Amino acid sequence: MRISELSAVSSVPVATIKYYLRERLLPEGRRSSATQATYGDAHVARLAVIRALVDSGVGIAGVRKVIAVLDDPPDDPYEILGAANGAVTPETPADIDLTAATELIGRMGGDAEACFPDQVAAVAHALATLERAGFTVPPAVMTAYLDGLSSMADAELAATPLDSAEAAVRYVVLGTVLVEPLLLALRRVAEQIAAAQQFGSRR
Amino acid sequence: MRISELSAVSSVPVATIKYYLRERLLPEGRRSSATQATYGDAHVARLAVIRALVDSGVGIAGVRKVIAVLDDPPDDPYEILGAANGAVTPETPADIDLTAATELIGRMGGDAEACFPDQVAAVAHALATLERAGFTVPPAVMTAYLDGLSSMADAELAATPLDSAEAAVRYVVLGTVLVEPLLLALRRVAEQIAAAQQFGSRR
Repeated sequence: MRISELSAVSSVPVATIKYYLRERLLPEGRRSSATQATYGDAHVARLAVIRALVDSGVGIAGVRKVIAVLDDPPDDPYEILGAANGAVTPETPADIDLTAATELIGRMGGDAEACFPDQVAAVAHALATLERAGFTVPPAVMTAYLDGLSSMADAELAATPLDSAEAAVRYVVLGTVLVEPLLLALRRVAEQIAAAQQFGSRR
Repeated sequence: MRISELSAVSSVPVATIKYYLRERLLPEGRRSSATQATYGDAHVARLAVIRALVDSGVGIAGVRKVIAVLDDPPDDPYEILGAANGAVTPETPADIDLTAATELIGRMGGDAEACFPDQVAAVAHALATLERAGFTVPPAVMTAYLDGLSSMADAELAATPLDSAEAAVRYVVLGTVLVEPLLLALRRVAEQIAAAQQFGSRR
């Protein structure tokens, strides 16, 4: 199909498609003449992934990293997960104190030294932000977070499709990033439901 | 203290403090002369909250809404929670299909019609983003999400300080927004731990 058709099928404006082509997020089409190229289903699928990432607040640099993982997936499922996470984990200052983060990771049954450093640093950064704001997560609440997230992660891993590397990468990358807004939105509803049960809804 | 001291104590540049004053995120200091004002502990505390929100990715408009709730808290704890959530929930198109969101909320024991409309719409928007990307959350994983988030919300509500409206607002607003990056960071670590247990770590 031509770029105008690709635009119509994907609901992405032609100018935006050209931007993605220039940024090399989208592979070139097949040249059909000096000024025209044709595009296929792979372009439609790729555009859907790019739009979903952008809609979820991932920047162009993050999209580029995710696509690099999708284009050239590691063989090892464990490395796939790390690459997927790394693609969308912001870099944090290297000199951050990891003590509290290491302790939380231990409570989830993990070893911080065996985790990807950016992930541990992201936990430490989030804890430091809370501390700067003078906010303490009550111990019973932290326990509920660690237990809940461990159960969710176990369920996610159990459902990872392992029949092809491409399917696994797609599941891990998109499942990690795209699901975040859903979890945050559901969390707020869950809080509202818990509040209604505790205080009684006025609505 | 003078603005230069406020800057030193809070680690926020003077120019940024002036910006927050212009944006009315920070209350005016007490005028000590035509060109000078003095600031107190309340300004230090407010700056810490603003910085924490900004660090967590909340925009100026969201910060303004959170501060409005902190400055003038509703009496009803249920309304406090709604106001806190509303302050940081992005507006979503009103014509979005709420069917799937309503079903998920029902599975958490809630009634979508009794929830704040922006929250239900946020769930629907997140689901639509996933669908556009061609990503389906496996049923067993969705069940784990709903169960885990319900347990977390119950623990959060049980720990809400109810001795003062100010303490409750602070807990709910900051606990909702500031904890999000921590949950997302811990989730990635939890996934990594689950992967290490399933596939064996190579690190």
